[in-house]
Amino acid sequence: MGSTCEINAAMSVWRRLSLFVLASSLCSRLCRAEDSAMENIVTEKKAEESHRQDSADLLVFILLLTLTILTIWLFKHRRFRFLHETGLAMIYGLLVGVVLRYAIHVPSDMNNITLSCNVTASPATLLVNVSGKFYEYTLKGEISGSEVNDIQDNEMLRKVTFDPEVFFNILLPPIIFHAGYSLKRRHFFRNLGSILAYAFVGTLVSCFIIGSLMYGCVMLMKQIGHMGGDFFFTDCLFFGAIVSATDPVTVLAIFNDLQVDADLYALLFGESVLNDAVALVLSSSIVAYQPEGDNTHTFEAMAMLKSFGIFLGVFSGSFALGVATGVVTALVTKFTKLRDFPLLETALFFLMSWSTFLLAEACGFTGVVAVLFCGMTQAHYTFNNLSPESQERTKQLFELLNFLAENFIFSYMGLTLFTFKNHVFNPIFIVGAFLAVFLGRAANIYPLSFLLNLGRKYKISPNFQHMMMFAGLRGAMTFALSIRDTATYARQMMFSTTLLVVFFTVWICGGGTTQMLSCQKIRVGVDTDLENFIGPDGVERRSTKHESAWFFRIWYNFDHNYLKPFLTHSGPPLTATLPACCGPLARCLTSPQAYENEEQLKDSDSDLILNDSDITLTYGDITVSTDATGAHTSGTPVGRVTVHSDEALDRELAFGDHELVIRGTRLVLPMDDSEPPLPLDSHRYRHKNESMS
Amino acid sequence: MGSTCEINAAMSVWRRLSLFVLASSLCSRLCRAEDSAMENIVTEKKAEESHRQDSADLLVFILLLTLTILTIWLFKHRRFRFLHETGLAMIYGLLVGVVLRYAIHVPSDMNNITLSCNVTASPATLLVNVSGKFYEYTLKGEISGSEVNDIQDNEMLRKVTFDPEVFFNILLPPIIFHAGYSLKRRHFFRNLGSILAYAFVGTLVSCFIIGSLMYGCVMLMKQIGHMGGDFFFTDCLFFGAIVSATDPVTVLAIFNDLQVDADLYALLFGESVLNDAVALVLSSSIVAYQPEGDNTHTFEAMAMLKSFGIFLGVFSGSFALGVATGVVTALVTKFTKLRDFPLLETALFFLMSWSTFLLAEACGFTGVVAVLFCGMTQAHYTFNNLSPESQERTKQLFELLNFLAENFIFSYMGLTLFTFKNHVFNPIFIVGAFLAVFLGRAANIYPLSFLLNLGRKYKISPNFQHMMMFAGLRGAMTFALSIRDTATYARQMMFSTTLLVVFFTVWICGGGTTQMLSCQKIRVGVDTDLENFIGPDGVERRSTKHESAWFFRIWYNFDHNYLKPFLTHSGPPLTATLPACCGPLARCLTSPQAYENEEQLKDSDSDLILNDSDITLTYGDITVSTDATGAHTSGTPVGRVTVHSDEALDRELAFGDHELVIRGTRLVLPMDDSEPPLPLDSHRYRHKNESMS
Repeated sequence: MGSTCEINAAMSVWRRLSLFVLASSLCSRLCRAEDSAMENIVTEKKAEESHRQDSADLLVFILLLTLTILTIWLFKHRRFRFLHETGLAMIYGLLVGVVLRYAIHVPSDMNNITLSCNVTASPATLLVNVSGKFYEYTLKGEISGSEVNDIQDNEMLRKVTFDPEVFFNILLPPIIFHAGYSLKRRHFFRNLGSILAYAFVGTLVSCFIIGSLMYGCVMLMKQIGHMGGDFFFTDCLFFGAIVSATDPVTVLAIFNDLQVDADLYALLFGESVLNDAVALVLSSSIVAYQPEGDNTHTFEAMAMLKSFGIFLGVFSGSFALGVATGVVTALVTKFTKLRDFPLLETALFFLMSWSTFLLAEACGFTGVVAVLFCGMTQAHYTFNNLSPESQERTKQLFELLNFLAENFIFSYMGLTLFTFKNHVFNPIFIVGAFLAVFLGRAANIYPLSFLLNLGRKYKISPNFQHMMMFAGLRGAMTFALSIRDTATYARQMMFSTTLLVVFFTVWICGGGTTQMLSCQKIRVGVDTDLENFIGPDGVERRSTKHESAWFFRIWYNFDHNYLKPFLTHSGPPLTATLPACCGPLARCLTSPQAYENEEQLKDSDSDLILNDSDITLTYGDITVSTDATGAHTSGTPVGRVTVHSDEALDRELAFGDHELVIRGTRLVLPMDDSEPPLPLDSHRYRHKNESMS
Repeated sequence: MGSTCEINAAMSVWRRLSLFVLASSLCSRLCRAEDSAMENIVTEKKAEESHRQDSADLLVFILLLTLTILTIWLFKHRRFRFLHETGLAMIYGLLVGVVLRYAIHVPSDMNNITLSCNVTASPATLLVNVSGKFYEYTLKGEISGSEVNDIQDNEMLRKVTFDPEVFFNILLPPIIFHAGYSLKRRHFFRNLGSILAYAFVGTLVSCFIIGSLMYGCVMLMKQIGHMGGDFFFTDCLFFGAIVSATDPVTVLAIFNDLQVDADLYALLFGESVLNDAVALVLSSSIVAYQPEGDNTHTFEAMAMLKSFGIFLGVFSGSFALGVATGVVTALVTKFTKLRDFPLLETALFFLMSWSTFLLAEACGFTGVVAVLFCGMTQAHYTFNNLSPESQERTKQLFELLNFLAENFIFSYMGLTLFTFKNHVFNPIFIVGAFLAVFLGRAANIYPLSFLLNLGRKYKISPNFQHMMMFAGLRGAMTFALSIRDTATYARQMMFSTTLLVVFFTVWICGGGTTQMLSCQKIRVGVDTDLENFIGPDGVERRSTKHESAWFFRIWYNFDHNYLKPFLTHSGPPLTATLPACCGPLARCLTSPQAYENEEQLKDSDSDLILNDSDITLTYGDITVSTDATGAHTSGTPVGRVTVHSDEALDRELAFGDHELVIRGTRLVLPMDDSEPPLPLDSHRYRHKNESMS
């Protein structure tokens, strides 16, 4: 018997395994097995009990969410703005966590005792031989040595603890997709340069600042002997990356309710949405930092370049996949008459958006980043091809999924404070982290704003900067990234500290938003278009010609003349804008409506997703005002707009109010802010804001 | 070393386990382990590869569904009715199955090789010691001996094979809930007695007939030596139970499109929805048949009684839980102003409906049955409390989930024909099964119809019976029940045969529906209300006083006077209908609108879910016609209707056309069929059928 347990290391893994199989089957005969029929029943019973336990656990969360919903309603009913739904969900999660941790004791079940057996590597699936019957086990994860000793006590708590991948595979995608799908595109594109700067440069800066500060803190802790384990610089950088992902959902909700300045909203929202993506890929790149040699934590240029390459590759790959799926969906909805069947159209939309995620994951990219860009592409192109009913259905569907997933995550955050077994709360680290987060945010916002203001015509005022500084809440993405891997001491300390950072920012900063708004004298109740016409009194005014004017103009022309006609029914038709040699292709790709639509199709006024085609009205109006109806089939580039110079663009955009009748939709939308509206006509400029929330 | 592997059988399990832990850790030192750091990476890599593979697998299904949707659109576009979406999904599943089985070969990955180790029982969780690191594995299920040998080849196929519990936990609940939620209640309640008879009595009869016939077939096979394993009478009964669950989704869709007689629709739909529930619980009861003694397949009265008791207990327990959750949701939506926030209301509705399932599962009942009755309760009560926007949202949400889940299951059915590794196709069994299914359906429909017709005033005509016989398609429930446990030879044979039965009925019977309709001369294009006024020429006419008149009347009074006022805003108010002693309670439970609503709240005309309160109009009209507006706060039981005799009820129902103005909704709904409408007023009787699909 003993010899079968001795395995020659020189043999291949497979031979080792087969020998071991032999060994275990020999061993098993020695162990007196239970009656095999009884085992069958026992196994089924255990599976059933496990299932019942899982159902009960999930039920706890459902009831948590139900309670949260009812309380949210109560708060809305009484206009209570100090505690947003996410902060509330966390509180309820905390309460339930306390109950589960201290009030409920589940006696250990003998049947659930875990067994140990000898393997040489941990495979994905494990086949267990029980007296001739084979049972399949799947790898759930690694558990720490300390947990092993407390198996019984921990059983209940571990059961309400989800596999962290649930966040990345099930909960975050709807949230991120919804963020992309509901982007208010006009203001987003206006501030595109600044948003990209904050999201990319700002996050990187924040990451390094926080990482360096934490490293100093960690060094200090090691000096005074407060460090219970390893904590390397890469860990500090990782912490910097994950805690740089902002999630100001509370603040944005309040901004919506109070109708705060749309550019501030766009800056915050755009930054948060993109920096989630950046932080995610950045943290993966940091984790992928693998220098050669024994010490995996020394600096090595090659490894760093490789990490950087991974960052670029994963980000652009995910971006490409997300956009590609959006484009495919747009084409499918354009060239089929699915709009006659809203159910089919909605189902297709949902499936294609979900497939983005799976495709990105299957190809080794990041699904969450892909769905973000897919959502943005869908909002920009596909949305215009959907029937009105499908537009409503898809918006409502993702709004619901977003709501449920978000509150679930925040409830879980509260719960984890008590159910997570490996918390490492270190006061010095915590204080250091709060300081680092504060300074990191400041290093992100203020220098960048200064640099951006050098290029912006309408500056980001100091009070906006203070608001952005204050509104750097942390939330779902930070939490998910920190809980993803809590195997090591360093990661556990980071997780515990991250929880506290999230709690503090959501409750304190989120709750103090209204006060901060008044303290910073930021205007509320702002009508999106009226504000276009307030004179240059230090408050930003809108015009398409500002904000990365050159970059934006290039993009805008390309989008208006080629992408939109290609992917949607909007005009000008490709037959007009493409060179003559592509004639057949253009005819094939142009839908009949494009000939009728010299302007782009309009979304309804009350649509949440503002189509930035309303910018184009002025364009369209200049060329089309005398030909608002009727189809154009000639080759005359009636709809084509080529901007030859800044002055020409300015002139085109400088027209005042135009009343345009578009396909029966009466839409009045002046685009220039150089002339204030005539008071008598002021009502004509009001853009319905009913559905801004 | 050898001694540690010998374990004394007299020791307790725990001591055995602890010794074994010791043994394995000693053993592990002999086995040369890989570098632990490398192992970490290897483990993460394997987890990641496993994740990528899972994503790819799911992507296959998403693309299948997408293809199905596009083809469905094409069929609808061209009015092609011979292949319904479910049959189409199965075909695509088949094609992909063929590709996966024969065209794709995935080389076995060393890392995925399963290991074997020695345990004495199969626990729910397994702790694996890999050189000091502990990994947790969870029990996935049992796999057969033959699969073990073909691990590599099967790896790819097994990956696209889902755990059967996915059907019962994720896919079936939305389908069944939607069936309950979208029940056309007027016709359902009119034919309630017949529906219950077909669903309960008919399913039991079908189960026993099929079981007995199959037992004969099995005996024959044993005689001639074609039986490769055990096949007991309980297995035959189990087969009878699972194959008695009808799922005529194809037929009903065609009925909807062509607007076939609403009673035929109600009979088929109601029967299929309830017999799914009955078959599910019946099959569980049969599985739970556990006589004492060694031979688990002999007849034993006590065990049979116990099975029967389980059937009753589980069914009524699930029923009670489903209804209870529906009631709670109704009360919550009634007493809060959630209707101001459609998102919150929809989210709450969704969560509470989901919680039914979890609650039932956690309590050991059947979640699928519970969600059915929850859906019916929600449709009958909660729906009336929702805001119009929430009504739309919830309908659309569950319609979408139903669509996706259903097509997923049917795709999977097609796929399984090729990816399932343990098919047992036995020609004799298959032929016997088809025969038994045919005869079982006949034994269900014809005798019962004869008996029911003795009591019904408006008979179920022979052509209706033939149509019901023909429309006994099998589908999702049968498939899910058969795939749930395929461990034994008998179960595998049943699964393979069930697949073929489903294919045949869906493709052939479903495809031949239109022909059968014309062959049986069943009217199409029937306007639901006009048909009320066609004279007694042998075609069923409708009246509330028929179909379980006594039973229905009792229920109707109770529902109208107590349940509806309690759970919704409809009148008559409880203060009027409850005895004086319950005054305070009644005042507490009555909402202000109830005083204004002497009639029940009306759903919109185009609402899919027809509120059977339109039956009550006549009631309401008799007592309220002069007081259609204004609140009643007196104790006079104005709204209360007590029916004292059949004649009184007949008289009340015998009024001709009444034009009622309800809260601004112009609704004309005559309820009696004894007088044909005046031709000039015929347009007034048309009930909008736009949204019947």
